[in-house]
Amino acid sequence: MGPGPSDVPPRVLQALGRPTIGHLDPSFLALMDEIRDRLRQVFATSNEMTLAVSGTGSAGMETVFVNLVEPGDKVLVGRCGVFGGRMADVAARCGAEVVTVDAPWGQPIEPRQLIQAIEQHRPRVVALVHAETSTGAHQPVAGLGDAIHEAGGLFVLDCVTSLGGMPVELDAWGVDAAYSGSQKCLSCPPGLSPVSLSPAAVARLDARKHKVQSWYLDLSLVRQYWGGERAYHHTAPINMLYGLHEALALVLEEGLPTRFERHRAMHELLRDGLARLGIEYVNAPEHRLPMLNAVRVPTGVDDALTRRRLLDDYGIEIGGGLGEFRGKAWRIGLMGQTAVRRNVSLLLAALTDLVRA
Amino acid sequence: MGPGPSDVPPRVLQALGRPTIGHLDPSFLALMDEIRDRLRQVFATSNEMTLAVSGTGSAGMETVFVNLVEPGDKVLVGRCGVFGGRMADVAARCGAEVVTVDAPWGQPIEPRQLIQAIEQHRPRVVALVHAETSTGAHQPVAGLGDAIHEAGGLFVLDCVTSLGGMPVELDAWGVDAAYSGSQKCLSCPPGLSPVSLSPAAVARLDARKHKVQSWYLDLSLVRQYWGGERAYHHTAPINMLYGLHEALALVLEEGLPTRFERHRAMHELLRDGLARLGIEYVNAPEHRLPMLNAVRVPTGVDDALTRRRLLDDYGIEIGGGLGEFRGKAWRIGLMGQTAVRRNVSLLLAALTDLVRA
Repeated sequence: MGPGPSDVPPRVLQALGRPTIGHLDPSFLALMDEIRDRLRQVFATSNEMTLAVSGTGSAGMETVFVNLVEPGDKVLVGRCGVFGGRMADVAARCGAEVVTVDAPWGQPIEPRQLIQAIEQHRPRVVALVHAETSTGAHQPVAGLGDAIHEAGGLFVLDCVTSLGGMPVELDAWGVDAAYSGSQKCLSCPPGLSPVSLSPAAVARLDARKHKVQSWYLDLSLVRQYWGGERAYHHTAPINMLYGLHEALALVLEEGLPTRFERHRAMHELLRDGLARLGIEYVNAPEHRLPMLNAVRVPTGVDDALTRRRLLDDYGIEIGGGLGEFRGKAWRIGLMGQTAVRRNVSLLLAALTDLVRA
Repeated sequence: MGPGPSDVPPRVLQALGRPTIGHLDPSFLALMDEIRDRLRQVFATSNEMTLAVSGTGSAGMETVFVNLVEPGDKVLVGRCGVFGGRMADVAARCGAEVVTVDAPWGQPIEPRQLIQAIEQHRPRVVALVHAETSTGAHQPVAGLGDAIHEAGGLFVLDCVTSLGGMPVELDAWGVDAAYSGSQKCLSCPPGLSPVSLSPAAVARLDARKHKVQSWYLDLSLVRQYWGGERAYHHTAPINMLYGLHEALALVLEEGLPTRFERHRAMHELLRDGLARLGIEYVNAPEHRLPMLNAVRVPTGVDDALTRRRLLDDYGIEIGGGLGEFRGKAWRIGLMGQTAVRRNVSLLLAALTDLVRA
């Protein structure tokens, strides 16, 4: 019940352990096509360039920036937690001129403030974190796509923690590049990063003046393997892709609306129980994520000791605070397979023992 | 029996399917320490900075270059196949001034020629491929470490295909940075890249003037997670690391000398059988790798059709040629678990059917 990895269903674990076959084997290539198709459904997009990058969510973040940013490009980043900060760092390492719009930790960026900054700076790329894993804040995105596009920019959205646990609609929202992680609401182990680029983002890639600085993450090469040519680029992580293939099947069998509703319902169950224990969220009700519940460590309670007792005595992992929230917040994950009544009840029972004692 | 992934033993597949736990769980951190210790044994090194990068072998290659090369650095690359060419490309993307020493495909680089180039250019980094997977050529490295160090350089060695299948002795050879892949002679699925840096390489990293261009592969950050601090960097690929942990246990249980001898013996068995079929190696006997047998497609034999029939009718995958050898060579892998008599006999029987027919 930490900020990911989430619990992995037995069917996914079994898929991981299937015999390894070659990355150019026709039956493996067919499985990649299915992954692609399933990722498009989960991202709500028809983007041709939709694939799984061979690395964790942070590799997905880096993939988006190294491919879309050229030295000197102005990149506007919304920053109100660790992952917005990471985007600014990654963009700067690509030679971007980074401008940030900041908000206090626990809050999202004000859309009005963003639009103002977009009009002022007319950035080539605007990057936001949809679900800030370090603060549990939900970033509203309505209307931003149009504002970004009108100013000539591309809209990048970090969906690491949101994908599969709440609505993510790339095409409807005008998102040009999104990335996620396998280990959050998709409930696959960590190691893969679903990435999707709009046709406008692909056009930007095609028009680059400089080579992509990362060979490994260069989508102009990677797409020749995921696309029709099937040209060898690097050896795909076969067994991890078996796992993702199965995890996506489970997501689609449940159905996205049902899955989102389950996340919401479990969040409310947890929220009500925490309220009875006097444990408070760091964010206002309208900004809370269902899958990442960031709460203040109650006064007089030892952060590390309590998390250690949860792990040792109850077999529950919750996350500590990161950055500004280090030692001050707990991050309780209700992601994918983890978002079930059994877990919520057990955690509340354990916290009743430990916090009230 | 292609150029990797190799067959994965059941114990490794079972390990992959173990329940996913957190990347900061104390029992997972203990497993990482064991992986580190086992990798040091396999690399024959006492290097403190020895770890598994969260990506495939090409991510390991990129890790070494982005961390050790700064813009303007002179990098000398030995190039006699696809992977030497890839190193030159990756180094150039880091802003290096790349100088290559080339040899015809199928041969290694002449050490004398290398030493001459080192004395002439005094490069900051000299990079060689120990076992060139595209040509089956074995690069001799004796004496090169001293020559490189005397000229003020660091010695980088690509051990993707050699590690676990033939002697690799980083400390004895004076190698400053090496990387490998999990899916070759270690017989773990693809997805991880063992990497090791000498103290001199770490000192180079510590003295950098520019930030490492890749955030994901920045070892000054990654080492805080693999090292004592256990600071979160990115979410480790938990289940893949379970697999590597088990694969390394199998390597060490067999014992490195026994394992190398097995690879050599199976190579000789294959070589003798191919000779009876009139199939010729692309390289001279003294340059051949045991685990990657590159042979000419026999005259009058259809390359793609024969490989397809091997796969469909016999369940055997062998590799086609890459680059200059496209359509002209087959690459027969005898890597790790794949290097057993049963496989050699079956392949020879199948080739007898198909090539003699």
